[in-house]
Amino acid sequence: MNIKKILEDVRDDNINIEDALNKLKDLPYEDIGYANIDHHRELRNGYPEVIYCGAKEDEHIIGIIDIMNKKGSNILGTRCRKETFNKIKAVYPKAEYEELAKIFKIENSKIENIGKGKIIVVTGGTSDIPVADEAYHTAKFLGNDVERIYDVGVAGIHRLLNRIPILQEARVVIAVAGMEGALPSVVGGLVDVPVIAVPTSVGYGANFGGVSALLTMLNSCASGISVVNIDNGFGAGYLAAMINKLK
Amino acid sequence: MNIKKILEDVRDDNINIEDALNKLKDLPYEDIGYANIDHHRELRNGYPEVIYCGAKEDEHIIGIIDIMNKKGSNILGTRCRKETFNKIKAVYPKAEYEELAKIFKIENSKIENIGKGKIIVVTGGTSDIPVADEAYHTAKFLGNDVERIYDVGVAGIHRLLNRIPILQEARVVIAVAGMEGALPSVVGGLVDVPVIAVPTSVGYGANFGGVSALLTMLNSCASGISVVNIDNGFGAGYLAAMINKLK
Amino acid sequence: MNIKKILEDVRDDNINIEDALNKLKDLPYEDIGYANIDHHRELRNGYPEVIYCGAKEDEHIIGIIDIMNKKGSNILGTRCRKETFNKIKAVYPKAEYEELAKIFKIENSKIENIGKGKIIVVTGGTSDIPVADEAYHTAKFLGNDVERIYDVGVAGIHRLLNRIPILQEARVVIAVAGMEGALPSVVGGLVDVPVIAVPTSVGYGANFGGVSALLTMLNSCASGISVVNIDNGFGAGYLAAMINKLK
Amino acid sequence: MNIKKILEDVRDDNINIEDALNKLKDLPYEDIGYANIDHHRELRNGYPEVIYCGAKEDEHIIGIIDIMNKKGSNILGTRCRKETFNKIKAVYPKAEYEELAKIFKIENSKIENIGKGKIIVVTGGTSDIPVADEAYHTAKFLGNDVERIYDVGVAGIHRLLNRIPILQEARVVIAVAGMEGALPSVVGGLVDVPVIAVPTSVGYGANFGGVSALLTMLNSCASGISVVNIDNGFGAGYLAAMINKLK
Amino acid sequence: MNIKKILEDVRDDNINIEDALNKLKDLPYEDIGYANIDHHRELRNGYPEVIYCGAKEDEHIIGIIDIMNKKGSNILGTRCRKETFNKIKAVYPKAEYEELAKIFKIENSKIENIGKGKIIVVTGGTSDIPVADEAYHTAKFLGNDVERIYDVGVAGIHRLLNRIPILQEARVVIAVAGMEGALPSVVGGLVDVPVIAVPTSVGYGANFGGVSALLTMLNSCASGISVVNIDNGFGAGYLAAMINKLK
Amino acid sequence: MNIKKILEDVRDDNINIEDALNKLKDLPYEDIGYANIDHHRELRNGYPEVIYCGAKEDEHIIGIIDIMNKKGSNILGTRCRKETFNKIKAVYPKAEYEELAKIFKIENSKIENIGKGKIIVVTGGTSDIPVADEAYHTAKFLGNDVERIYDVGVAGIHRLLNRIPILQEARVVIAVAGMEGALPSVVGGLVDVPVIAVPTSVGYGANFGGVSALLTMLNSCASGISVVNIDNGFGAGYLAAMINKLK
Amino acid sequence: MNIKKILEDVRDDNINIEDALNKLKDLPYEDIGYANIDHHRELRNGYPEVIYCGAKEDEHIIGIIDIMNKKGSNILGTRCRKETFNKIKAVYPKAEYEELAKIFKIENSKIENIGKGKIIVVTGGTSDIPVADEAYHTAKFLGNDVERIYDVGVAGIHRLLNRIPILQEARVVIAVAGMEGALPSVVGGLVDVPVIAVPTSVGYGANFGGVSALLTMLNSCASGISVVNIDNGFGAGYLAAMINKLK
Amino acid sequence: MNIKKILEDVRDDNINIEDALNKLKDLPYEDIGYANIDHHRELRNGYPEVIYCGAKEDEHIIGIIDIMNKKGSNILGTRCRKETFNKIKAVYPKAEYEELAKIFKIENSKIENIGKGKIIVVTGGTSDIPVADEAYHTAKFLGNDVERIYDVGVAGIHRLLNRIPILQEARVVIAVAGMEGALPSVVGGLVDVPVIAVPTSVGYGANFGGVSALLTMLNSCASGISVVNIDNGFGAGYLAAMINKLK
Repeated sequence: MNIKKILEDVRDDNINIEDALNKLKDLPYEDIGYANIDHHRELRNGYPEVIYCGAKEDEHIIGIIDIMNKKGSNILGTRCRKETFNKIKAVYPKAEYEELAKIFKIENSKIENIGKGKIIVVTGGTSDIPVADEAYHTAKFLGNDVERIYDVGVAGIHRLLNRIPILQEARVVIAVAGMEGALPSVVGGLVDVPVIAVPTSVGYGANFGGVSALLTMLNSCASGISVVNIDNGFGAGYLAAMINKLK
Repeated sequence: MNIKKILEDVRDDNINIEDALNKLKDLPYEDIGYANIDHHRELRNGYPEVIYCGAKEDEHIIGIIDIMNKKGSNILGTRCRKETFNKIKAVYPKAEYEELAKIFKIENSKIENIGKGKIIVVTGGTSDIPVADEAYHTAKFLGNDVERIYDVGVAGIHRLLNRIPILQEARVVIAVAGMEGALPSVVGGLVDVPVIAVPTSVGYGANFGGVSALLTMLNSCASGISVVNIDNGFGAGYLAAMINKLK
Repeated sequence: MNIKKILEDVRDDNINIEDALNKLKDLPYEDIGYANIDHHRELRNGYPEVIYCGAKEDEHIIGIIDIMNKKGSNILGTRCRKETFNKIKAVYPKAEYEELAKIFKIENSKIENIGKGKIIVVTGGTSDIPVADEAYHTAKFLGNDVERIYDVGVAGIHRLLNRIPILQEARVVIAVAGMEGALPSVVGGLVDVPVIAVPTSVGYGANFGGVSALLTMLNSCASGISVVNIDNGFGAGYLAAMINKLK
Repeated sequence: MNIKKILEDVRDDNINIEDALNKLKDLPYEDIGYANIDHHRELRNGYPEVIYCGAKEDEHIIGIIDIMNKKGSNILGTRCRKETFNKIKAVYPKAEYEELAKIFKIENSKIENIGKGKIIVVTGGTSDIPVADEAYHTAKFLGNDVERIYDVGVAGIHRLLNRIPILQEARVVIAVAGMEGALPSVVGGLVDVPVIAVPTSVGYGANFGGVSALLTMLNSCASGISVVNIDNGFGAGYLAAMINKLK
Repeated sequence: MNIKKILEDVRDDNINIEDALNKLKDLPYEDIGYANIDHHRELRNGYPEVIYCGAKEDEHIIGIIDIMNKKGSNILGTRCRKETFNKIKAVYPKAEYEELAKIFKIENSKIENIGKGKIIVVTGGTSDIPVADEAYHTAKFLGNDVERIYDVGVAGIHRLLNRIPILQEARVVIAVAGMEGALPSVVGGLVDVPVIAVPTSVGYGANFGGVSALLTMLNSCASGISVVNIDNGFGAGYLAAMINKLK
Repeated sequence: MNIKKILEDVRDDNINIEDALNKLKDLPYEDIGYANIDHHRELRNGYPEVIYCGAKEDEHIIGIIDIMNKKGSNILGTRCRKETFNKIKAVYPKAEYEELAKIFKIENSKIENIGKGKIIVVTGGTSDIPVADEAYHTAKFLGNDVERIYDVGVAGIHRLLNRIPILQEARVVIAVAGMEGALPSVVGGLVDVPVIAVPTSVGYGANFGGVSALLTMLNSCASGISVVNIDNGFGAGYLAAMINKLK
Repeated sequence: MNIKKILEDVRDDNINIEDALNKLKDLPYEDIGYANIDHHRELRNGYPEVIYCGAKEDEHIIGIIDIMNKKGSNILGTRCRKETFNKIKAVYPKAEYEELAKIFKIENSKIENIGKGKIIVVTGGTSDIPVADEAYHTAKFLGNDVERIYDVGVAGIHRLLNRIPILQEARVVIAVAGMEGALPSVVGGLVDVPVIAVPTSVGYGANFGGVSALLTMLNSCASGISVVNIDNGFGAGYLAAMINKLK
Repeated sequence: MNIKKILEDVRDDNINIEDALNKLKDLPYEDIGYANIDHHRELRNGYPEVIYCGAKEDEHIIGIIDIMNKKGSNILGTRCRKETFNKIKAVYPKAEYEELAKIFKIENSKIENIGKGKIIVVTGGTSDIPVADEAYHTAKFLGNDVERIYDVGVAGIHRLLNRIPILQEARVVIAVAGMEGALPSVVGGLVDVPVIAVPTSVGYGANFGGVSALLTMLNSCASGISVVNIDNGFGAGYLAAMINKLK
């Protein structure tokens, strides 16, 4: 435990009070004015910080990459517009982009498989693929064996039932669905592992930008299901990786 | 057509203007101050008017029964509290009550089966039974062969799959579900007849009194599904009867 | 019943276990990675699968058409942008487009009238026509005799009353309305057949993108009414066809 | 104009500065700590202040009546529970109570008819009567000729059409409806006078305590309609009286 | 009464049944497929029908103008985009456009003042002007003396108080406000005539596109206030005209 | 700074590592299983912790009082039901109760006035008094000079205008209002000090339990206004005290 | 795999077609009319089915217990009212009840610890205990080592920080919070294991029965967090057990 | 007091009635048709009026600047689009623009520091900077010493804890956060001064344009917190200045 170590150093006069305070301050992150970059995270849990590009200025994004790249971290960015990626690519030629998922990565050191089992990503429809791919690429980036089964929504239940043997190989399932969002409930009844439900904003009218699917998933009668934010493929991929890493 | 007949009578001097106006006024309903009772409905579509007791004063309910009973109609009342029924029973000993469904009926002439096929009512869970029974008894009262399959929700999909042969005998299916409300979507993919979806208010938290199930059903990917109001078992039973009566 | 037949074949050694499993898997759909196409549907209920183009990539749409076209199916696509249609037309010159309805179809074999009666589509206003036309063309594509009566909203009730004789010829009515969405309630009181209510997003302010009309229709006092999603002309047309096909 | 008069008195030394300030302060209302009673209102517009009993303590209500009664005002109280009325009655034997409307009045001087025409109150159903009666008794108390037409909702449109001649005698119409709340739209198309729409909380499920009817009315396509709060029969009665008083 | 007259003609053999039915059908409107134009309205209440251009196709709008213009009606169109107006102007050079209000009119016969008093339009802020101007031009078009008082919101109450003498000259007040929408409540306490409250969508964040102002107005403690839809300047102007016309 | 002090003690060997860790743990609060009581707060900011009784078991509340009382703190409890208070009173006879405000206090040491100016609490109506009194008693308990002006809502603006001289003596104003909640906007334009707006749940229908007033206040055009939760008189009283204490 | 085994038996003539169909039908559940009890679940995943008593009739609950008890299952019931439990206790004296959690259990065979690590349940406040205890007892019943840390909400962050060493021993954390619901976000930043967030309905006003906390949790910036329904302690406990069981 | 002075002048015949009325009318604002500019405000509270450019026409904005500039006021405009600013700059070369904050100012007289302490603005993330900068520049413009601490959200709590010493120097804290919006709750527990919470619309899905953060802040368990509208950096900066000015 870090804090205990610093206290011991203080007691043993290995460090003075001012330095101890600074150490507490400097260690976990680097302050660049518009952002505090958490270098500590990678030490803490084996995963580098991930950049949510959604509402950030392009210069801020590139500034953050710059700092992380200097440390040699692997870098993942989500919700990255194509134009932003092009600017990144101009500076970091190693950067790669997944167009549907709107994810970029810079792989400074080879990603190793640290997951203990297989993660399976299923979708209700073809239109849910961008969100599902965000989950897929996130989990891959975090060192997992991931498999995709797409367009197996509950309105044609046979499509899903035929995949039961494959589904039952998973250690974690990510179930992605828009419109009525019923897929996780059925999947949850078929497997005996955690199901992470991801509502998508796919649909129109009374789906209210994904609220319909979100509520469906929160109210699921099946056990072993939990939910992340609408369209949050990243969050599902990250959580799946975290579960899959449990010893 | 009535209105044409009245016009013809006017032309042929079988009736004068004042009487014609009165006829238009008196024929279809009987005004008792606090209600206009539609005697015409039974002639028009073979079904008597149904009394929604929900927010009515007890005296008003009994007053309406009184008028209908004098015409010898069969009478159905929905959302009828037990205490209200007891008052009705005291006056009309023939009245019968379905406790879970909160429905009463007075069967003045024997109900005949006029439906062309079978109506099946399915529920997601045991807690949905009161709403499903309202649909069941309504459809029975309107002259149909109705069958019930309860507690076959999608979180244990095998319960439903084993009933496919029975389900496929239906001419109309009424699918009743609370919580995530996914049952109609799966049923809609399994049968080739209209599915009437009934969301129930069963659940808690983010089900928002049935809104979750309602949205699920409105956003269903399955075709051939339409939706009635939350807990509206009566509406589903009535519509099913209307479809089942189509020649 | 298919599944029974496969079991019998297994018993009689006409087929081995592996093949039986594959048969169950292969029959109903064709997996092309981003989509599972349900060829079975046409056999099951006489209707081909319909492509919801709303949130799909153009390449995915064309890929799906490709598969379906090889089987010689008639193909219907909804929510199809003009630009997407132009790409389709370039590959499939037989493709036709309905501009207001945003529907395309490829008629590989002549559509036959299989409906038993007439479907009538009514709208409250001129602005509801795109949704109503989606219903109209869907029902036509599925083999029905369909008639349109537009701009007969309840604020000028005489427009509707004069059409009573025509309305009463319908076997199913589709009532399309935005703003206050009261049309289905009045229509439901005038006819004795199922009324499918379609709320539209036409309006502004407190119509909340169609929520106002949706709630109106769900709360209708008229019996025999059910509701589909906001702007879901396709769903209404499909359900009307399904009801109209009932023997 | 009062304020001008006070300024003139100041100029003419009929009154000193302190007294002028006090006059401004004392004239329009009487401060009794928990309430400021507006005696001025009756002078200003011929109507006494009305007591909304809804969330007030019984002692506060009686305290307010006390002050008003001393001035000899006619007194009207809305949303008054039966138990509260009983306490009032014990002190003011002249007090009268309308049970359905939950209104009490104390008529210290005979109410004279000051309206220029007739106000008509229509309801969609029997269950809307309590709200309609609140409007009815309010308008009567404020000196109007008021007529009631109840249970003429749009799902049985003939009930309303036969009343057209009566409706067209109105100078103002108050249209009260719960559930889908479509009545004002139809009425607005039939008459050529202002229609005050009152949504009620009658219904269940997706009526959301009257929101459904409220939205319907706000989105009405008919012209000449405006809306008051859910269940606000008082507000409608008051506004109708104000319009009916216009010279 | 028209309907009585037709009945009398039938009785007196001045007209046969078929013609009577046709007369009922043809009189009130003209059916042009995508629209039913209500020529009757002008006869009924002195006002021509108004075209809501919001969600209509340009060709439909011009088609409707065409019909109305042939009858020599004065024509008003609301929510008309500039580009649409340009197309109209090309065909009907007499057409005039109000840019902020997005209203066009074609004045085929001179508008006469038929209002009995003055209508005053007040706004809370400068940003509410487009909606207020829609009300202003509508009321002017319908033959009224209208006056505008803009930017007198309650956060600077002295701006409003100084206008009390002007406000008290009104026979009807239209109070337009966005953001917190409190203006009608204060105005309602200052005048003794009907106040029509118009919420606008001006604001951001928790104003939810005008919902905040709408709720404020519906919940107003002041009496004599009623509300129209968000941004519905037209509806307010029309209703004000209707009230101002009352004899 | 405490944490610095502990670090210095560690360095100077006045304390060992284990004890330092314990000190960090024990100092600020006392863990009694179901609650962690923050004794530190009083030291930190001069105010004792306040008990929100709302959803706590009676035994838990009394257990917490017990701990605090032993330290001799002054104790304030909000949202305390009468029955709960009676149990408290039985154990702590010094306890006092404010019935409308549902607040109890145990004054172990005399409350001293530490505020620098006057806090004024205004309400829109009589029905808002319970919430306003919660604010009043909280601010009093925290050592302030507080004054109440009740029932001065904007629908009768003169009631408020006459109080301008008093209002302008305030260092902080708490403006409490239900229904349309417009009071803070007007007050904010009249004074030059912070206005804390408290929406109440007083009203019915479209006030949605206080949402209407809440939105009004959040969207206020007046500057210097901020908002607390619906019915949160305590929060307003506490914040007012905190501002009034600023040197 | 069961289904393969049945197919093999069919092929080998160990079983006939009818029996095979029945086997598929009978195995997984037992149909008792109002419920289908899933005996299979315990075989499938080691956990017996759990009875959600929320909206069930008492007789239905006892009927279900009866069936399960005959199989010797351990039985857990959630949302069980005290009165219902008393009826259960009368029949099954082994039944035990947790009053705050509203959970009962019948332990027919001793529960063994099958979890691989420790589950920790933390709450923001004292009022969240009933929900947290539902999670606690569920996870215990499913064979886990569970620890509780209550009343460590973020408004007094030191309470939580001092527990970091304990928190970091967890394999799964369940974070339960009402009001602003921020606890999971902070916990998620402190631990490197999955955090299951449970919003509670504790609070008032703009917490909207737990919606506030729910949205907070869905929008958490911390990674590794997922959410269950409002007040769904059971779901969280079950999911935690499922994760903790992963090998 | 102005109004008293005018009354005295009237009494002393220094001014006649008409002039007194005009004085009341003219003093506080200048009416330019589309706006009433409040020159009085600067006298009243030391701050000039601020122009909300959000929904105003460019010509209106420049017209208002014109009037204010003639008085030599310092001018601040918020929500100003870049293109609008360019037009302003063309006329008033002294105008300066803050691009992220979308604020412009014209500093006609040097801004003096009138705040008594320091205002600190903290944000949860980098994406919240535009709103935080609006608060920062507003408070600076109003004469305050302001400091910014950005990207210290609660999901990485150490970033915030290390800033405790700086935070505790503040006289007022503005806490800006989107997504889950939990920052103010934690800050509120760490400081003993008022915390103004500003929800931002940063996020996606179930953040509903900032509603999630708004609700979090309204429901905060920490005391001393109040909330302004979503994205209302200006309002927070203004209120902070007002509090910081208190003597």
